[in-house]
Amino acid sequence: MTEALTPERILEATEEVLRRYGPAKATVVDVARALGVSHGTVYRHFRTKSALREAVTKRWLDRTSEQLAACAEDPGPAGERLERWLTDLFSAKRHKAGDDPELFATYTVLTREHSGVVDEHISELEGQLARIIEDGRSQGIFTGAGTDAAATARAVFQATARFHDPAYAPQWSRPEVDADFTAVTELLLRGLTA
Amino acid sequence: MTEALTPERILEATEEVLRRYGPAKATVVDVARALGVSHGTVYRHFRTKSALREAVTKRWLDRTSEQLAACAEDPGPAGERLERWLTDLFSAKRHKAGDDPELFATYTVLTREHSGVVDEHISELEGQLARIIEDGRSQGIFTGAGTDAAATARAVFQATARFHDPAYAPQWSRPEVDADFTAVTELLLRGLTA
Repeated sequence: MTEALTPERILEATEEVLRRYGPAKATVVDVARALGVSHGTVYRHFRTKSALREAVTKRWLDRTSEQLAACAEDPGPAGERLERWLTDLFSAKRHKAGDDPELFATYTVLTREHSGVVDEHISELEGQLARIIEDGRSQGIFTGAGTDAAATARAVFQATARFHDPAYAPQWSRPEVDADFTAVTELLLRGLTA
Repeated sequence: MTEALTPERILEATEEVLRRYGPAKATVVDVARALGVSHGTVYRHFRTKSALREAVTKRWLDRTSEQLAACAEDPGPAGERLERWLTDLFSAKRHKAGDDPELFATYTVLTREHSGVVDEHISELEGQLARIIEDGRSQGIFTGAGTDAAATARAVFQATARFHDPAYAPQWSRPEVDADFTAVTELLLRGLTA
């Protein structure tokens, strides 16, 4: 009996095929060949090439939000958690960009194709931030945060775009970027605790 | 006697030629033809095509920083000035992007070619911000600003990138962008006055 063909195995193979051939050339036939199955079998799990690419993009983005979820749900002091969450987000994005630049470039193309998946990813991250901010308000720490935690989370996320938006990836290896990150984060934390 | 051929007239003609032919096709010969002179005459003022494109890029960016200079030098309360400066910067960039999208796209290409000119532009804008922040410290308003006005200015500039970096121009027509701008600006102002 052959190993069961799970959606997860198809997505792993898809990522590998994308890495090897690039987003412009990778086909469903390549994915099927890598798995030793027919392309019809792949289509039974993902109805179109676009659905497959969308799912692999979501999986790639989910890796980051899953890493950050624990920090968002931590019951500790919100100030430290916010700082850690922003640091971890920057670190995760930076590693993705630096450790495997080809795959990062591939996903930059895919995220343009599937902007709905990106919007959901951003909503999820902002939701995690909102949870930290709400905790900070109930802990009496974030007295400057206003009553709308979601709106404040959105402002914090947008104000730190330089440290997570892939558009800025070419600048993440510059020597001044860590000092910049600290300065922005401290300024925002002061605003929240004001 | 013909009208004197000033660098300013050449730059005006260059902008017009860029607008008409686009950055990929526009040549010095087109500029010379538009002015009714030989291309040798243009080269007497700008030694290379690249120097001419650099100068026209600088002129385009300078228009924005000149608009903002008065607000930076104003002796009034720094909090209001900071808010006005950020609002005026966003408004200026937004108008450039919205009123003349072709010219905006052209300059987006040119700024990639001449990143040194862009760096100088950013330095100038951060210098204006630093002046407001320094004033705010000496007025006793920006008690949360730290002693390094230049570093704080850089942090404010980076935290508001969404509202001036041309990479975000496609989002400036979204309905939520004004509320986003207000939320980020207020959070930063609270951080400065903390």
